[in-house]
Amino acid sequence: MTFRIEHTDKETKARAGEIITAHGKIQTPIFMPVGTRGTVKAVHQHELKDDIRAQIILGNTYHLYLKPGIEIIEKAGGLHKFIGWDRPMLTDSGGFQIFSLADERRKTQPGAKPMRKISEEGVHFSSDIDGSTHFFTPENVMDIQRSIGADIIMAFDECTPYPCEYDYAKKSMDMTHRWLKRCNSRFKETEGKYGYEQSLFPIIQGSVYKDLRIQSAEFVAAQNCEGNAIGGLSVGEAPDDMFAMTEVVCNILPKEKPRYLMGVGTPGQLLECIALGIDMFDCVMPTRNARNGMLFTSQGTIAISNAKYKDDFSPIDPDGTSFVDKQYSKAYLRHLNKADEMLASMIASIHNLAFFLELMRQAREKIIDGTFREWKDKMVKQTEQRL
Amino acid sequence: MTFRIEHTDKETKARAGEIITAHGKIQTPIFMPVGTRGTVKAVHQHELKDDIRAQIILGNTYHLYLKPGIEIIEKAGGLHKFIGWDRPMLTDSGGFQIFSLADERRKTQPGAKPMRKISEEGVHFSSDIDGSTHFFTPENVMDIQRSIGADIIMAFDECTPYPCEYDYAKKSMDMTHRWLKRCNSRFKETEGKYGYEQSLFPIIQGSVYKDLRIQSAEFVAAQNCEGNAIGGLSVGEAPDDMFAMTEVVCNILPKEKPRYLMGVGTPGQLLECIALGIDMFDCVMPTRNARNGMLFTSQGTIAISNAKYKDDFSPIDPDGTSFVDKQYSKAYLRHLNKADEMLASMIASIHNLAFFLELMRQAREKIIDGTFREWKDKMVKQTEQRL
Repeated sequence: MTFRIEHTDKETKARAGEIITAHGKIQTPIFMPVGTRGTVKAVHQHELKDDIRAQIILGNTYHLYLKPGIEIIEKAGGLHKFIGWDRPMLTDSGGFQIFSLADERRKTQPGAKPMRKISEEGVHFSSDIDGSTHFFTPENVMDIQRSIGADIIMAFDECTPYPCEYDYAKKSMDMTHRWLKRCNSRFKETEGKYGYEQSLFPIIQGSVYKDLRIQSAEFVAAQNCEGNAIGGLSVGEAPDDMFAMTEVVCNILPKEKPRYLMGVGTPGQLLECIALGIDMFDCVMPTRNARNGMLFTSQGTIAISNAKYKDDFSPIDPDGTSFVDKQYSKAYLRHLNKADEMLASMIASIHNLAFFLELMRQAREKIIDGTFREWKDKMVKQTEQRL
Repeated sequence: MTFRIEHTDKETKARAGEIITAHGKIQTPIFMPVGTRGTVKAVHQHELKDDIRAQIILGNTYHLYLKPGIEIIEKAGGLHKFIGWDRPMLTDSGGFQIFSLADERRKTQPGAKPMRKISEEGVHFSSDIDGSTHFFTPENVMDIQRSIGADIIMAFDECTPYPCEYDYAKKSMDMTHRWLKRCNSRFKETEGKYGYEQSLFPIIQGSVYKDLRIQSAEFVAAQNCEGNAIGGLSVGEAPDDMFAMTEVVCNILPKEKPRYLMGVGTPGQLLECIALGIDMFDCVMPTRNARNGMLFTSQGTIAISNAKYKDDFSPIDPDGTSFVDKQYSKAYLRHLNKADEMLASMIASIHNLAFFLELMRQAREKIIDGTFREWKDKMVKQTEQRL
């Protein structure tokens, strides 16, 4: 993997760059659609490529390990071949899911006793599907991601919840650092073993504590990996805390490597974080909100179920770049949403992803032509409006 | 609307023809995908056109009247414009839904008291959505279909259930005939009033009683409409009864007008009914079964959830004509189905519809080149196998 910065903004810390992987180029800043179980929900692969113009998508180790299981993906010749996607891919390590889904299951299945035991060795956890028990360690999470075969794989970390006591955050961060060393060793030992060219990104933790974030960023930077990620944000803290932690970390991370802010965020948050020096994002927001009838546009957000759209026959988004913006009206999409038709989720998911990707392409253009800051300030305001 | 028979098979009563409507041509025999609420479930309009190559799709008066409501469709300038579909369209009258959905609701909502009171004047019924009460008459069902604006609209009938006593079937049929006269009068009175070119198809009833079917076919044929439909079949009777009734009716209906068999059926049943002289079909089977993981192929049916497909990385259907057949494997589709991902329904719906449409195109070709019967017998056997 190589990373080259093409342009750095003069007024902010925004960068326009290019990552080259075995599966092709990624022009940054980039938003990566989330394909948790090997599918970006409600979207065909060719739509991601040709209409949304996604350059890289995400898979999730935790989910894919449980279903369909690593054996199937190995037999298929890796995740790319299994799902029919020939562009770059990234897999999350599953750390976040082990921690979030146990809580999720407790909420929706009050009788369930989801298990999650953290030790220095790793995490014993129960499946959110059938309650069966499993054990993830830094080593086997590397092995699993080696056989899934994504271009970029993530270190196994503990994603601390929010709020989180300082002492817990520190202990957890220290363990995540020790796990990172183990991930790195295993990653190096297994180089070439599975036949894929892969890069490992470590994850910075430290909750909302500035000194911990500094420690973690310094530790992570010293590992000298090919790219670096910031985890444990967008988990419930105030956006200002998220920005503050991102800024602190970006000031420490090496400039010449891509920076990936995990799980963020709204269109406005993406733009603010680009200004802080972030190159890569992922988030379920565009697809999850789409399924709830929320559309992101350059003028603000639309709740399509609102009665005022019932006879609004104008395009979903006049500025939209996707075919759905030309082909369907707001009134039709509202009807589909109210009738609980699958096509509603399909249209809204494509629209939202196309909007996020187009926003990144525009940001890149503005960085290159030197007008990023002014445009960013305008777009943050506009996209935060409710239409 | 014009209908021209291009070729009649020598060994069977199959015909290859062409219907010309204000929205374009329909080559028969044809299968019409069902778009009950203004959407063929899980399929984009452009996929119906370019990939599945549907020539005509269905809408449903009952469902569209309740949601989004006729006012919205009128404001949009008709159903074609509302949903973004510029090829021919047909709307069912809602007779079948009023009768079937009341029972449906009783099954799923034991406390519900769905209402359906039939009188000479029309049918009082309660909405399956909110229980609100409505009144459909032959006259207002014509008016509603006039404002929806489909190229072919259906007479308002009572779809008799199965099994059905002879006396009830006869009384019901007689009333359906009187309603047909009222439909026809209203249809003629409203000619040109809504600005759409439309044709009215009457519906033959008579349950599984040969003498009633003969009476009904003779009555309907005498109305001299532009096409004729056979209703009240595929509602639970044995396939042989369905074939027998279809044969009796086809022998009476004028040859020079299109014949539409409503709600039928499996690929094998379609081919047998083409051999009896049917030109048009509709059925929810390809899309409904798709959502349950059942795929129709030229070699037989596939239940994709079957464990034997878990590592079968061959194409969904090697003979399939759709992009999904090339792009996705059985193992991937099985994974999506087991993970309850929307993409599973999206892929299977497109595949099944593409298969049904391709089967009709092949039947047409075989009728024209004089090899229909032999091919039909082989395909009926093949498609009935379970893989």
